[in-house]
Amino acid sequence: MSFKHRLRAFAAGAAFLASVPAMAQENYTADSTTIRKFYDSALTSHESYENLRYLTKNIGARLSGSPQAAAAVEWSRQVMEKMGLDRVYLQEVMVPYWVRGDKEIGRILSGRNGSQEVNILALGSSVGTGLQGLSAQVVEVQSLEELEKLGKKKVKGKIVFFNRAFDNRHVHTMAAYSGAVDQRGGGPVAAAKLGAVGVLVRSMANEIQDVAHTGNTRYADDVEKIPAAAISTKGADQLSALLKEDADLKFYMRMTCETRPDVLSYNVIGEIKGSEKPDEIIVVGGHLDSWDVGEGAHDDGTGCVQSIEVLRLFKEQGIRPKRTIRAVMFMNEENGLRGGRKYAEVAKSKGEKHVAALESDSGGFTPRGFGIDGNDAQYAKVLTWKSLLTPYGLHDLTRGGGGADIGPLKGQGTVALIGFRPDSQRYFDYHHTAIDTFETVNRREMQLGAASMAALVYLISEYGLDGGPAKAVK
Amino acid sequence: MSFKHRLRAFAAGAAFLASVPAMAQENYTADSTTIRKFYDSALTSHESYENLRYLTKNIGARLSGSPQAAAAVEWSRQVMEKMGLDRVYLQEVMVPYWVRGDKEIGRILSGRNGSQEVNILALGSSVGTGLQGLSAQVVEVQSLEELEKLGKKKVKGKIVFFNRAFDNRHVHTMAAYSGAVDQRGGGPVAAAKLGAVGVLVRSMANEIQDVAHTGNTRYADDVEKIPAAAISTKGADQLSALLKEDADLKFYMRMTCETRPDVLSYNVIGEIKGSEKPDEIIVVGGHLDSWDVGEGAHDDGTGCVQSIEVLRLFKEQGIRPKRTIRAVMFMNEENGLRGGRKYAEVAKSKGEKHVAALESDSGGFTPRGFGIDGNDAQYAKVLTWKSLLTPYGLHDLTRGGGGADIGPLKGQGTVALIGFRPDSQRYFDYHHTAIDTFETVNRREMQLGAASMAALVYLISEYGLDGGPAKAVK
Repeated sequence: MSFKHRLRAFAAGAAFLASVPAMAQENYTADSTTIRKFYDSALTSHESYENLRYLTKNIGARLSGSPQAAAAVEWSRQVMEKMGLDRVYLQEVMVPYWVRGDKEIGRILSGRNGSQEVNILALGSSVGTGLQGLSAQVVEVQSLEELEKLGKKKVKGKIVFFNRAFDNRHVHTMAAYSGAVDQRGGGPVAAAKLGAVGVLVRSMANEIQDVAHTGNTRYADDVEKIPAAAISTKGADQLSALLKEDADLKFYMRMTCETRPDVLSYNVIGEIKGSEKPDEIIVVGGHLDSWDVGEGAHDDGTGCVQSIEVLRLFKEQGIRPKRTIRAVMFMNEENGLRGGRKYAEVAKSKGEKHVAALESDSGGFTPRGFGIDGNDAQYAKVLTWKSLLTPYGLHDLTRGGGGADIGPLKGQGTVALIGFRPDSQRYFDYHHTAIDTFETVNRREMQLGAASMAALVYLISEYGLDGGPAKAVK
Repeated sequence: MSFKHRLRAFAAGAAFLASVPAMAQENYTADSTTIRKFYDSALTSHESYENLRYLTKNIGARLSGSPQAAAAVEWSRQVMEKMGLDRVYLQEVMVPYWVRGDKEIGRILSGRNGSQEVNILALGSSVGTGLQGLSAQVVEVQSLEELEKLGKKKVKGKIVFFNRAFDNRHVHTMAAYSGAVDQRGGGPVAAAKLGAVGVLVRSMANEIQDVAHTGNTRYADDVEKIPAAAISTKGADQLSALLKEDADLKFYMRMTCETRPDVLSYNVIGEIKGSEKPDEIIVVGGHLDSWDVGEGAHDDGTGCVQSIEVLRLFKEQGIRPKRTIRAVMFMNEENGLRGGRKYAEVAKSKGEKHVAALESDSGGFTPRGFGIDGNDAQYAKVLTWKSLLTPYGLHDLTRGGGGADIGPLKGQGTVALIGFRPDSQRYFDYHHTAIDTFETVNRREMQLGAASMAALVYLISEYGLDGGPAKAVK
């Protein structure tokens, strides 16, 4: 039965041939077979899933600078050492070390409605409140613009509560996130400038949940640093409703988080040398650090184990790529991007030529495609492979994309930055929370992603991303 | 931010226009806007999700003939009554009433390795073992063919254990299911013909799990009915491993299931009359019955609430369709298909003209497309709408499809049978198990499905499915 089905799948692929005049039939068939083998192996293997289990369950949350992050570095180095790669090495990078301290307390204090606990999580990089905590009246705004208009008089001495929700009309949840996350990043500075004493930000989530979603925030050197926390979407709705009844209510928040001195950490890198153009490098990566709550499963354990899986798929199929493939576990994506910056800095100083960098940092969900940040010729080249990718549901081959860690490579030669795009619907149910756990990852979905990444990396390794017709043309 | 993003979405749609010469720009824009409104509403509404919560949590599992199935009929009638539809009615159908009885016992008895409990679930329609249960030696086979070759001598008096696993290489899990489910349907008759006393079937699942997956089996009038159960994939692996060590081990199974007299039940139907061609009917449906374990969430609570949601979306947008749209909650898909057969029988006897029937019975996951079982012209017509659907990830518009409940309509005029195709990766983690619960359904994924169904139903209601160029052409 399986065989028949696969014949059908090949036939479907073949039907696209008419639309791919630029690629010779011969190469098409060989490439199609190689890609099919990646999927066959990925879908039947448990190795990567067990890697994820170890990373999430045995190591767990691994914020930069923490002992767990160090354990993750050593573990991923060992995993790649055992794979018989051509080179596995660490790249030193100093990272910030922020610690959350005690579990936060968030409490609505209303003379009218009594006291109610709500779930808050300090935002990454936030200062603490001191052991006593702080309590103040709350001013709710929907945007930085609205805050600006209120002015100092209405803000001074208060906690500013940014409560603009995700716009759920977006089909792609990342667009909803982009439309709300300015509150988290820019809220504390904007509020402090007007004399606020603290900030609450509605959690970055599509749904009403009891868990709070942390994430990094920013301070400015010349503006007072005030404590900032994410409040669960459920808590935000409660607070907003109570404020309508009792505008004078106070909010009590207690957070003992603090930033400690920078810590030496590492990007972890494994590579398979290219047979024909070893100096042309293709990066495939994710970030090894995670927030300090939950297990960092979808963000970004899956991206790490998928990147390692790409190398495993090449090794298992006995494929020596024409160009060098480098799996990079970046450190410190969440609260500093020091790993991504360091990687680009070293690449530049060594004069390395990166053909492409592919990042998986959108969760281990069913793949939908790739976002390509490259020039017209590079994008056109990827499109010539479309018929090899659509049989696996990879229809979304769109401009724009990339990823945070690979971003600093931009402009080094003609490197194309590519973002792996899985289905986005569930990502913000888990993102930066205590419930981003191993159990929320489906083995098959994650492995389809790994095979998809391997397929694209393979095609780039075979044909490069230079403009013009595909190299496969005879 | 939302607005900008939506402009981009429209622009992406517009880019496809060049490839849709058959559809006038004017209609394209209007249809595109209508469809966008369906998605906007579906993604921001919780009504359908709350319907699912009620159906799964307050009513729960609802096997045909059970009091819960009756409650589901009355509840769904009431839900549709409140919607201001043109007509809501019940369609009588006699259904089988099978009851599971006590929780099953499954036990491996090995002289060498002692006794081990494993999870089994009686297959639907199975006879019981009697109160004492039965124990017998086990003969493991991978297929009906292998069993046939063994012959009576090696099978008589034994329990036949069908242990062929899903072929996980299939990207679409439904293909893996199709490749294994003959064991469940045909196993008991084939085994009984050779004198077996019982049957165990490896659960229809992609992964190794502790839960067993039930599902219907078949008997033949002239063959002895022997008890048949699904064994969890984990239990199947254990049993198989132990058989290799001790071929003489016995398996004890106890099941008190039985089939009782048929019960009067109903298909539940709600409709919006067409303004221009009220006699042309488009069915959108799911099945209201479920297995008696779990909550029947993905199978097929989501299909039911999505079908109701399609009507809600039309009502909310104030769209009076040109053709009649009928939401049908079919009864008894799981163990008899009596509802589907009855619906087709009544349609035929009334001489109703069905243009299309769309069934959602593959889970409430992110939509990927539709499978169309129709003639060339109908399929070509659907393809002319492709550019209206792909912005929502509906790329898989392929031949073949339909659904069990709408199947009996086949051949009535030129009705096209259409299967809604969501992402399939997680379906067989839950299918027919105690863990097919409300919690496994993601609101957004389900609602994207509902909006996708509404979009296709809308286009069919506007333009029909007659062959030739789209009606929209000027």
